[in-house]
Order: sequence, then structure tokens, then C-alpha cells
Amino acid sequence: MPIVTFTTDFGAGDGYAGAMKGVVLAIAPEARVVDITHGVPARDVVAGAVALAQAAPLFSPGTIHLAVVDPGVGGSRADLLVESGGSLYVGPDNGVLSLAARPPRRIWRIESSTFRREPVSPTFHGRDVFAPTAGRLAAGAHPSDAGPELDHMTEVGAPPVHRHGGVVEGEVIHIDAFGNLITSLPAEVVTAIGPDIAIEIEGGEGRFEPGFGRTFSDVESGALIAYIGSGGQLEIARRDGSAARRMGAERGTAVRVRSANA
Amino acid sequence: MPIVTFTTDFGAGDGYAGAMKGVVLAIAPEARVVDITHGVPARDVVAGAVALAQAAPLFSPGTIHLAVVDPGVGGSRADLLVESGGSLYVGPDNGVLSLAARPPRRIWRIESSTFRREPVSPTFHGRDVFAPTAGRLAAGAHPSDAGPELDHMTEVGAPPVHRHGGVVEGEVIHIDAFGNLITSLPAEVVTAIGPDIAIEIEGGEGRFEPGFGRTFSDVESGALIAYIGSGGQLEIARRDGSAARRMGAERGTAVRVRSANA
Amino acid sequence: MPIVTFTTDFGAGDGYAGAMKGVVLAIAPEARVVDITHGVPARDVVAGAVALAQAAPLFSPGTIHLAVVDPGVGGSRADLLVESGGSLYVGPDNGVLSLAARPPRRIWRIESSTFRREPVSPTFHGRDVFAPTAGRLAAGAHPSDAGPELDHMTEVGAPPVHRHGGVVEGEVIHIDAFGNLITSLPAEVVTAIGPDIAIEIEGGEGRFEPGFGRTFSDVESGALIAYIGSGGQLEIARRDGSAARRMGAERGTAVRVRSANA
Repeated sequence: MPIVTFTTDFGAGDGYAGAMKGVVLAIAPEARVVDITHGVPARDVVAGAVALAQAAPLFSPGTIHLAVVDPGVGGSRADLLVESGGSLYVGPDNGVLSLAARPPRRIWRIESSTFRREPVSPTFHGRDVFAPTAGRLAAGAHPSDAGPELDHMTEVGAPPVHRHGGVVEGEVIHIDAFGNLITSLPAEVVTAIGPDIAIEIEGGEGRFEPGFGRTFSDVESGALIAYIGSGGQLEIARRDGSAARRMGAERGTAVRVRSANA
Repeated sequence: MPIVTFTTDFGAGDGYAGAMKGVVLAIAPEARVVDITHGVPARDVVAGAVALAQAAPLFSPGTIHLAVVDPGVGGSRADLLVESGGSLYVGPDNGVLSLAARPPRRIWRIESSTFRREPVSPTFHGRDVFAPTAGRLAAGAHPSDAGPELDHMTEVGAPPVHRHGGVVEGEVIHIDAFGNLITSLPAEVVTAIGPDIAIEIEGGEGRFEPGFGRTFSDVESGALIAYIGSGGQLEIARRDGSAARRMGAERGTAVRVRSANA
Repeated sequence: MPIVTFTTDFGAGDGYAGAMKGVVLAIAPEARVVDITHGVPARDVVAGAVALAQAAPLFSPGTIHLAVVDPGVGGSRADLLVESGGSLYVGPDNGVLSLAARPPRRIWRIESSTFRREPVSPTFHGRDVFAPTAGRLAAGAHPSDAGPELDHMTEVGAPPVHRHGGVVEGEVIHIDAFGNLITSLPAEVVTAIGPDIAIEIEGGEGRFEPGFGRTFSDVESGALIAYIGSGGQLEIARRDGSAARRMGAERGTAVRVRSANA
């Protein structure tokens, strides 16, 4: 019973996600369809890549992950099928797969008509290319039957980590539904600075220096705190509230870390 | 393993959709419950009918589709079970099933107590009538056991297509989560006008004449474009943005098409 | 094929819910994952408890219900596993389980490393404690293997019902996505007052005295009506609109009921 997951920006209220599930199940009646999210902000490829990377590693090898955040649908970008870590990823070649389907990996361009639903709508490859591909794979087809193998695929920009003297600078790469800020700074970069660190973030509401701790429940209500998040990166939260709103922080807002003893 | 799909306006945050799934699975433990959407705007029967019609045709015959957008619950409207194209549709007799469950079809009124969960709450037939009915059907019951067969059911108004001289006029029948406008004009009506067409739409933000093309990725960022959408109707989108917001268009806004050579 | 349900405040747009599903399915490939909702308002334990209680009783005994609304994650509150009515409930000890997992019940603290995913992130017990626990249970583990049995758990406050002379006073305990008000007053308390009752509610928009009836479709569009809701409590709705917005009512707004003949 192969598992097919769904990560899209289709939002609530339409039947688009349901259409994709119908296509998968019509081809592979034994498949199990599992929603990751359909609430990726419209056309936000980076946010889709982050959501998929938060969830996909927790599934067993052999899972088929469909990700459709596809503002360039019908244009020149390729339709991709990627194998990484024993799982399969299906979606457009715009980076949405790239944070989850890490190298080493194999990449195929989906071209075979048996992996498509003809005629393919130029505005809905989710239904007409990606879902049929996921269905065929779930029904036992081999990835190499999809089309020619490629050398590379589009990556979303590697999250920035810059060093200026003793300061490491990154940025907010994602804001979750709680208003927590996920930064580009990995745990190992932060912990290498030393046991006592000072964090600085400048948002639209001013300049903030949250303390560094373990979790938001360690501070009083309303206080800000930085910590190593569940994805292994520096995060900043506000207990019982939204850090993003309190600080006026957005994706791209700079975050600086230095030794508190410097 | 019969499939039962769910299309509702229950929104996020409540347990109502979960309650329906529990009822189905308690009656038919083998059933597979698949969400189409729970984000239909509250009480918007037409939007529910559109969402169901976007998704249901992609599922295999034999699927059971539950649709509950039901502002008249507990009143005089009937509880329906409809067979169309080999699939079954369950929901209130207010039109929400009518775009997906096209004729030829058979229609039954759900009256049998074995298809209900007694006592039936007058405000939640989703849980107490439609979910038990879907469960019984998934467990192998025959539709005709539900109650008496009916001749007709409520339809949502046929999407308007008017002709004035050389102009074909329709209207926006749905705005999706991307802000794309889905119109009432079918592809065949549009293409019959000729190879070169001119499109005009008058929204709250003024009068617009989007070019006609294949897909939004064919135009520059921010530009409007009309094209035949994935559902086979004329659509209007804005690349990298919301056409609805740009134009101030709403459901019901008029859309006119004529030959560009006239 | 055990069923595992999900009730969270993770919202749309992130991969957190997907991560939990991945963990469950990696441990128990036969499990069936069913969403109740991921739209509980962020950090709103009471709303999560209400949503779970709306849905969980409809599932068969043997179901495993995961509920994660967990603002105190990583702090001193316990991770719980509760057996009630033949079903299992997994979540934090903050009351979110307490309206669904009613006494008589057995309660265990999750401590065994085989019920956790080490190292446990102090900000995501959903992924690292609750999902692995649900997975182990779905794979056949016994609850008592999770850790020591406890005598009691945190309850969300019992919904208030006060009596002053002939007046029974309760309050709004939940507002659903339709804007319907669910009150703390059980049907039996309301019906004990007599056949003719008068209802009074004072919201931010003034003082309202909705009539008492059966369902909103019994009154004209825009009218308010009180009735016994599908959960067995007094509710107040506005036909074709939001009662909460019309009245300016919030959770905690007082609702008074007395005999109309007094």
C-alpha cells in the first residue's frame, strides 16, 4: 500500500487537490493519499520547499511525495521525478522539491505519455502530469520509464550564512502559523559560537535581542526567546503570541549571532 | 475498499468534518475517507457545487461523494442520494450535487432509518443523515434501500451564456484561491468565435481587455491573460498575482467575448 | 487497520502535521491517518478540546486520537496517554484531551524511550513523543508500556452553569466557523426550565433576545434563533449569517435563560 503525500498552494475552497487525489486513486486504487498541506501561500515556491522538507524526512523510504507550487506551469520549466533517500518526489523544476530531495539523488524529466493524462492542460500539471506520475509509480512503474535522466535541477537558494568578524549573519527563511521565525542558521553554526551567545534581529517594529534558551515555555508570557528549533535551525518565538508580529519581522529579515563574551 | 470523499463548508477549527468521518468509518471500517475540501465559503452552495465538480469526475466510478453545504438543514429540502456515471453522490437537495452528478442520473430521497443516525439533529444532517448514508453505501447497501426514487432535484442555475449580435456574454462563476476567474463560457463557445478574439471584463477597478493565450506563464509578471482553463471554461488570471483583486471582479461580473476582426 | 486521528493548531502552510503523519506511518504502516482538524486557533487549548470532543465520540472504540495544542511544550507538563470508552487519547496534560476522554478513564505518563523519538525536540513533542506513541499503539503496544499510571490529569474548566432565582446563566464556550455560538448550557438544563423560555445575551453590539426553536432554517434570513445544537447544548445562530458578528459575542459572553411565563 504505497503512500502518496500532497503539498500544494491550492488553498481551501477549491476541488483542485481533490482532483489530484482522484487521479492518483484511479490509477493506483491501493495507494494511500496523505495530506501534508494545501496551505502553502499562493505561488510561494520557497515556502512550499520548506513545508515539504519539514515533513518528508519523517516518512518511510518508498513514499511518493507530490509537491505542486507551480507559478510557471505550462511554460518551459520541466516536470520532474526525483529519487532521493529511497523515496520519490514529483513536481515542477522550480526548486520546490530541492530542500527535501537532497543529493545524492537521481532526476528524470517526465515526458512519457503513460505518465501523463492527455490532453495536458497548460495550467494544471498537478492533475495532468504530477498526479498521473505519482499514480503510475504507486502502481509499480519504474522512475526511468518517465523520461530522460537529467544531471541537475533547480534549487531554491541555499539559506544564507555570512560571517563578519565574530558575527554570524543569517536571515528569516520561514514564518510558521504560530508566528515563529525559522532562520537560515543551523544549530552547529550557532553552537560553534560558544555557550553564551547574543542574538540581534531588526524588524519593522524595532531592534530585538531575544535571550537564547531551550523552548518558549521556559520564559514568561509575551517574552521573546531564541532556541534551536525542531528542524535543527535557530528559531525565535514569542511565548503565547506571534514573534513575527511583535517584531515586525518578515522572510528575509536579518538575524545576527555573536558571542556574548566578545 | 470503497472511497468516500468529503466536500463541505465546515471550515477549519471545528470537529464537524471529523465527526462525519467517524460515522462513516464506524459503519464501514474498510472505507477510505478522502478530503476534497472543507473550505467552501460558509453557506455558499454554488461554490460547493463548483468544487465538487472540479474534483469528482477524476475519481473512479464507484466512489461515494459526500457534499455538505447546507444552510437549509432541518427545513423542508430533501436529503438526497444520486447515482450518476457509476458514482454515488450524497447531500442536501439544494443544488450542491447538481454540477457533478450530471444527467443521466437516478435520484433517491433518504428516508430509511437504517440510513440515518437517530435521533437526527435538525442542524447537522451531515453527521446524522449524509455520513450514515455514505457509510451504508460503502458497506454495500443498495441506493434504492435509502428511500423513494424522485424525478428531479434542485439545480444550481445553469451558467449563463448570452449572445448579443457578435458578442457572447457570460459571467464569473467562481474565483479560486489564486484569484483566477473561472467564467461560465465553455471552450467550444469561445473557440467558435474564431481564432482571434477580444475579451472585455468590467470590474470594480475599471475595464480590462486581457489578451487570449494558453497559460499565465506565457505573459510577463503582473499581466492579465485569458485562456481555456483546466475545467474547460474561459478563465482570466494575472501572472504572479490575483486577477480578481487587480480587476475588482466578483462572482457575477460580466465577461464579453467577440471576434477581434469584427 | 487501526485509525489514528489528528487534531492540532498547526494551521495551514507548514509541514508539521505531515511530519506527525510520517512518524505514525513509519512505525505502523497499516495505520489509517484521519484529519479531524489542523485549524484550532493557535495555542487555544479549550477550542482544541471542544473540536476533539465534537468528533471523537463518533469514531469506533479502538481509535487512537492524537491532539496537539501545546503552548507549554518542553516545560513541566506531562505527556499523556489516556484510555476512555475503549479508545485511546494522546496529547499534552493541559486539558486538550479532557472533554473527549471522559471518566471513567485510565491515564499514563509517556516516559518510555520506545514511545519517543530521541532526541526529543523541546518544541515539538507532537512529532517526537505523541506521534511515536500513537504509532506504537497502532502497532499493538499496550498503553501501560508507555510509563507510569497517573491518578489525574488537567481538565479544562467545567463549562459554567449558574442559577440565580429563576434564571440559569451560562456562557459562550465556542464559536464555530459559521459564527454559531455554542453555549455551556446542556439541553436538559434548558428543557427543565419549561416549554416556553426566554433567552438573553448581551454582546458588544447590544442586548439580544433570540427566540427558541428547532433550527435556523425555521426563521427568516438574518434572524437570530436559539436551539439545542448537535452537541446537545444550547446554541444561538443567525440564519444566513454570523450570530457572533451580529451580536458582537465572544467566548465567555454570558447567556441567560428563564421561563417566558415568569
